[in-house]
Amino acid sequence: MENIMSYKTVDLDDANSALLILNQSKLPNEIEVLSLTEQEEIHKAIYLLQVRGAPAIGVAAAIGVYLAAKRIEDDSYSVFYEKFKAAKNYLASARPTAVNLFWALDRMETVVKNYPNLPVSKIRDLLHKEAIKIREEDIWVCRTIGEYGLSLIKDGDGILTHCNAGQLATAKYGTALAPIHVGREKGYNFKLFVDETRPLLQGARLTAFELYENGVDTTLICDNMASQVMKNGWIDAVFVGCDRVAANGDVCNKIGTSGVAIMAKHYNIPFYVCAPTSTIDMNTEIGTKIHIEERPPEEISEMWYKEPMSPKGVKIYNPAFDITENNLITAIITEYGIVQPPYEEILKNLFKNHKT
Amino acid sequence: MENIMSYKTVDLDDANSALLILNQSKLPNEIEVLSLTEQEEIHKAIYLLQVRGAPAIGVAAAIGVYLAAKRIEDDSYSVFYEKFKAAKNYLASARPTAVNLFWALDRMETVVKNYPNLPVSKIRDLLHKEAIKIREEDIWVCRTIGEYGLSLIKDGDGILTHCNAGQLATAKYGTALAPIHVGREKGYNFKLFVDETRPLLQGARLTAFELYENGVDTTLICDNMASQVMKNGWIDAVFVGCDRVAANGDVCNKIGTSGVAIMAKHYNIPFYVCAPTSTIDMNTEIGTKIHIEERPPEEISEMWYKEPMSPKGVKIYNPAFDITENNLITAIITEYGIVQPPYEEILKNLFKNHKT
Repeated sequence: MENIMSYKTVDLDDANSALLILNQSKLPNEIEVLSLTEQEEIHKAIYLLQVRGAPAIGVAAAIGVYLAAKRIEDDSYSVFYEKFKAAKNYLASARPTAVNLFWALDRMETVVKNYPNLPVSKIRDLLHKEAIKIREEDIWVCRTIGEYGLSLIKDGDGILTHCNAGQLATAKYGTALAPIHVGREKGYNFKLFVDETRPLLQGARLTAFELYENGVDTTLICDNMASQVMKNGWIDAVFVGCDRVAANGDVCNKIGTSGVAIMAKHYNIPFYVCAPTSTIDMNTEIGTKIHIEERPPEEISEMWYKEPMSPKGVKIYNPAFDITENNLITAIITEYGIVQPPYEEILKNLFKNHKT
Repeated sequence: MENIMSYKTVDLDDANSALLILNQSKLPNEIEVLSLTEQEEIHKAIYLLQVRGAPAIGVAAAIGVYLAAKRIEDDSYSVFYEKFKAAKNYLASARPTAVNLFWALDRMETVVKNYPNLPVSKIRDLLHKEAIKIREEDIWVCRTIGEYGLSLIKDGDGILTHCNAGQLATAKYGTALAPIHVGREKGYNFKLFVDETRPLLQGARLTAFELYENGVDTTLICDNMASQVMKNGWIDAVFVGCDRVAANGDVCNKIGTSGVAIMAKHYNIPFYVCAPTSTIDMNTEIGTKIHIEERPPEEISEMWYKEPMSPKGVKIYNPAFDITENNLITAIITEYGIVQPPYEEILKNLFKNHKT
């Protein structure tokens, strides 16, 4: 079962004390696995988006800070802890807005904090275990989402996805693509349609790569072709990931997601959001309270072709995310089960039962 | 009023016996007006899309074949007609699927055919008049559509458009953008939002150029941002052009149009199609009978950035057009008035009253 994926996004190489990552900044034209042993290299890999996707970044940081701890030779707890914190802060500075990065590093620090009376060599062992556990938990969360998602589709279905919420964004399986990868383990075949996802083309560069390399029947389209593909009768379900889910089930995800949801509703196609409970923010009541980050106009006007493709000086609006209203979402798939409307009530119960 | 447009798309320069065109293949990075006197140059301009848009191509061909006739020195009618037909067939071969090209050339030939007893010099004068008339009729049609469209919006409105159905596709004013340009003549100001229109970027390259150069408040977005822009409350109406309208009001237009229409309906925004009656095909009952041309995958995978941006070998679906169902269309704006549902009945009456 382990070998169904052609590549690993992020892993620990114990023999060489190295963090292994598939260099995503070179995809899809070059497949390069980086073996990183130095903290500067790991910091750079996170900063340059060589590893990306919230869960994958968390795993990379956990492994990274463990590798730093492994090298600290002092036997005194207090000196060890000081040096550990310095390494942690250094890695945390690689992407100051990546919540998962801090979450994973904090979890690693808790291990150090909790065992002041253990010998440093034992703490190192516990950090090793914790880093592996963070990676394995991510795999479990994604695999479980995949199992639940798979129960909603059948062999041979046509599936549309937007952006990359696949294995490349996590340790394995992904979120939106987990039902596809888990299905493949069980011998299912699906027909995947992939929005290219302008302006940064995560769909064309990453999702199409991940699916095609794994032998999935994959068709790339421009974002504005989704309606025609749905009208052709080729799509049985839409799966997307998410950056944040509000308490009422409104979803913040990559720009373009809400348009896909509106089209899916028009064509009576179920629209599923795959959301680890770590992305559900019960403190945000509704989607409109989520701030939509705007990114540089050059991503639209300059990052392609040999010369600028829009007139110099024209205004450009480049929101990174949009909000999909809860009434457009057929179900939200979490590692604790499939949530259907009314979202506010069911999400509250989900957290009552599983997060205390 | 003539000077409100910064550039002319296509015109006759009598003094120099030349066809003037704004070279659209160099937009938006270079503004080059071509003065074409040789038939080979005119053929090439049409073939290379230096002039594009069905009405603009028709006008260019009419002027082109007139310039050819002007050079035929034989005084015998039959020799003149033979040489005229050779010139006509040569220009017609520049874009074998452009209906308007044939229509304009046929109209020019009818002039020659109808006057076998006139001296060739008189026929040349009549061809000159006909070429100018074809251009002026196009301007009248677009201007009238602009007036009707303008009656549906108010000063300061936010308008979304897709692809380029502007002055650059016609002799002046355009179709979808005619309400904007005619409004400007009257002192209106609108806020235009322009879909970039993947894969060939007619929105970013041509519409954004045309509006920005003419001083319109213009904001460029990626196609997948339209939903968020609508959700922000920035759009009061959508205007698009069309390639073909079926007898029931279904519309075939640039890929992505149907998605915009579905989103507009979701957000309760009126969706208007600007359609000269020449694009309404009463012999095609419904939209699904229209064949959707597929274009080369390289337009999506290769025509941008410095290297291919999708994995080699992955399937790509690249339809040039899509079908917007009549129930998504608030009104179809023609030069004979605004048509609202039920389209089948009203379109039939329109043709009964105006086309015999």
